[in-house]
Amino acid sequence: MEKHIIINVGRQLGSGGRIIGNRIAQDFGIKFYDKELLDLAAKESGFDKRFFERNDEHKGFLKLLFSPFAPLFGGTNPYANQLSDESLFKFQSDAIRKAAQAHSCVFVGRCADYILRDFPNKVDIFITADMPDRIKRVAEMTGVTEKEAEKACLAGDEKRASYYNYYSAKTWGAATSYDFCINSSALGIDATTKIIEDFIQQKLKL
Amino acid sequence: MEKHIIINVGRQLGSGGRIIGNRIAQDFGIKFYDKELLDLAAKESGFDKRFFERNDEHKGFLKLLFSPFAPLFGGTNPYANQLSDESLFKFQSDAIRKAAQAHSCVFVGRCADYILRDFPNKVDIFITADMPDRIKRVAEMTGVTEKEAEKACLAGDEKRASYYNYYSAKTWGAATSYDFCINSSALGIDATTKIIEDFIQQKLKL
Repeated sequence: MEKHIIINVGRQLGSGGRIIGNRIAQDFGIKFYDKELLDLAAKESGFDKRFFERNDEHKGFLKLLFSPFAPLFGGTNPYANQLSDESLFKFQSDAIRKAAQAHSCVFVGRCADYILRDFPNKVDIFITADMPDRIKRVAEMTGVTEKEAEKACLAGDEKRASYYNYYSAKTWGAATSYDFCINSSALGIDATTKIIEDFIQQKLKL
Repeated sequence: MEKHIIINVGRQLGSGGRIIGNRIAQDFGIKFYDKELLDLAAKESGFDKRFFERNDEHKGFLKLLFSPFAPLFGGTNPYANQLSDESLFKFQSDAIRKAAQAHSCVFVGRCADYILRDFPNKVDIFITADMPDRIKRVAEMTGVTEKEAEKACLAGDEKRASYYNYYSAKTWGAATSYDFCINSSALGIDATTKIIEDFIQQKLKL
């Protein structure tokens, strides 16, 4: 990959968006960030990794703030006790920007599309799927019942939307927030990945 | 076109969605319905065409109901004075269903994706575009100033969203409401049409 490119993938829980993002990164030979991004952020800050994991979009920082264990996570940095969720978001954003400046990347979630909004050669994607497919995928991946998987999907969407809508000036899952949105149930994971890659190649003139 | 197919195109005002829908219909050799649909509805009912035009998604029926001229439109049908906006919507829906049953069609707007939700071999598309492109397109097509075009775009989105959200169980412009959403500014009208047609061919196995 000669051109420096950034691909951001938003996705519904169980839509296969993470898998698709990973395949795009592999096919284009570029870096992939999801949980890895949190590791990077934790490493570069010297903060405890668990601290960031608790602040990721799936768990919510407010829970941590009001948790009786919250004080346990403030030991490694002198400013930790003063940290607001906004400053943690800013810190993660800096890590995303640093990675994006260093090399071509695929970012999954974490408002990376908004954080990198002024970045050139960027494509923002959103992946949905039909609920039965999402339930099946989540149930298979986690071993929970289908009923529990459906609950997880609904709760996951709500958390991702609330994280994204709070931290970005955009609406999670709205067509206007992305270049390209696709229901992975329509063509399946392989063909969905291929048509997204076709779009990326055309948009970024690769 | 041997297979009986239905393509529904939702779109932001000025996104080029109507042009794209028309090209898809031409390329696949199938019928195209937009204003034509209203004509069909008017013709089949025997109602005055102007009555339906006033109830289309751009103008709103409530305005008509409270208009001092409302009684003028009730002459051709004995039930016209009892008509609510819901019954008019139902009437249009019947016309859309009738057309969809008769032949392969592209429908632009009018909640056709929702009305035809149980139809087999159906693809639902939504077209967005960057605001500067929308403004330019509307200004060129109508001859208004750019400022007026921007106002028209914003008002148009609001009206379409309110019509769609009222009559369907879905959200206008939400990725989850469609199979495929694309920003036509990314690739331009020609390449956007082509990638949509590629998606349609794959999804419907044409």
